[in-house]
Amino acid sequence: MKTDRLAPHIDALNQRLAIACNMAQAARAITLPAFHTDIQAQDKSADIAGADEFDPVTAADIAAEKCLRGFIETHFPDDGIIGEEMADKPANNEWSWCLDPIDGTRGFVAGVPLWSTLIAVCYDGKPVIGIIDIPALSERYIGTHTHSESKAWKETPQGSTPLRTRPCLRINDAIIGCTEPMTMFSLGQKAAYEMIRRTARFSRLGLDAYGYALVASGRMDIILEASMKPYDILALIPVIEGAGGKITNWHGGQGFDDGSVICSGDPDLLDHVYPYLKRVLD
Amino acid sequence: MKTDRLAPHIDALNQRLAIACNMAQAARAITLPAFHTDIQAQDKSADIAGADEFDPVTAADIAAEKCLRGFIETHFPDDGIIGEEMADKPANNEWSWCLDPIDGTRGFVAGVPLWSTLIAVCYDGKPVIGIIDIPALSERYIGTHTHSESKAWKETPQGSTPLRTRPCLRINDAIIGCTEPMTMFSLGQKAAYEMIRRTARFSRLGLDAYGYALVASGRMDIILEASMKPYDILALIPVIEGAGGKITNWHGGQGFDDGSVICSGDPDLLDHVYPYLKRVLD
Repeated sequence: MKTDRLAPHIDALNQRLAIACNMAQAARAITLPAFHTDIQAQDKSADIAGADEFDPVTAADIAAEKCLRGFIETHFPDDGIIGEEMADKPANNEWSWCLDPIDGTRGFVAGVPLWSTLIAVCYDGKPVIGIIDIPALSERYIGTHTHSESKAWKETPQGSTPLRTRPCLRINDAIIGCTEPMTMFSLGQKAAYEMIRRTARFSRLGLDAYGYALVASGRMDIILEASMKPYDILALIPVIEGAGGKITNWHGGQGFDDGSVICSGDPDLLDHVYPYLKRVLD
Repeated sequence: MKTDRLAPHIDALNQRLAIACNMAQAARAITLPAFHTDIQAQDKSADIAGADEFDPVTAADIAAEKCLRGFIETHFPDDGIIGEEMADKPANNEWSWCLDPIDGTRGFVAGVPLWSTLIAVCYDGKPVIGIIDIPALSERYIGTHTHSESKAWKETPQGSTPLRTRPCLRINDAIIGCTEPMTMFSLGQKAAYEMIRRTARFSRLGLDAYGYALVASGRMDIILEASMKPYDILALIPVIEGAGGKITNWHGGQGFDDGSVICSGDPDLLDHVYPYLKRVLD
């Protein structure tokens, strides 16, 4: 980790954590009233030649991102911002934010209450704060990551509880998740997923970022996905790592440009999974 | 419909509806405290030669079914009972009950709050009351069906609202759902599902009975599933039909012995879907 440089900046991190929680709360006030209404989703792929996947965005996505950006520009005007729906803002310091106002817009449009707001704060390009906020369930999963300490916890109206992944030594014992195996994977990736799914205890689909929250909660063991964007991934990392898990690309690295993600609650389990992935990808 | 004989028995139906709602409430008191605890799931398929799918059942499933049966045996001792976890009880009259204490046990075990309690009441073998109760969301979907009237509504702590499916004239506009396409379908069924999914607007997975509740709510359009058991299906029928939708097997009939189910919020849309199914199944 290159976050040793963060040590003198713990106050700066804590300020951003407090604001990030306020941001998640403010976004709820925009997204929740739009949920379970007859909101019209626009198809972002309609203008893209060759795009054959419906890629929905709603007015709530855009309004929520504007709200989140407003907080950052007010409190930390030199921080960079990457968001799903609007142009990138370059940083004038070591800090940057990565926002997905509604992760799981398909679920949002279909009325499934598992969609989330994702907020990541990076220092020197590494995510040091991650928030998975689930407005419709009143659940917030938070992770922080400094050179000396990683921690994660869950906040609900009932209070705050630490997050801890569970041990899982064999793929046979694992509950595995994937949002949409029919559309996320290339042929080779699908074959790898299928082999691991058949070995695992059982699979659970359609969870978007909530699946990672369940790994951090010690309820699921592996999430295996692809076709992910950086703003889908960065906020998950401090939550998973702060709870004791590990999240990498399918090659075991920390670069997510190829969109592949594997997350395990038990870090040791990954060594049993990588060979399956390697066999099909090589 | 053979439910014309039901006309003189509306009081008997309403008595069962009131008890069925009490039953759903009582089951919540058993299932909810067991959710998000380290409940141990037993594998029902472990004793079955050749079974390769993990088939979980929890102590909460069995305790909830005992609770539900206790209500029926107390109030309607001559009614028949079919339940997922215990032996069938034959009827001494025209009435029978069909119970699934926890539909979506995999989701329950994995910590996903979309599992449900399903309660159906049949008269002359036809479902006339259906309840999809979602304890972790405090949502209850209810449908009733007599010779003169079908209706459906949703109950939450905020009150009761009528359920109404939405119009959807083309598969291209449909949001389609399926719990687990990789494991539910035979090869031919999977091909049919894939064709329809690629035509549809987008798909949403992992919903179990909640997907049918979302069709009844006018948020999704088609659910396409197979490998379903009667106790997975009967409670859904009055909810879907009471909201204005239609639910059949893949051949368009009302027999569900082959486990195939298609449900559409707009009944007219089914005529566009059956040919896809027929092409692959014939």
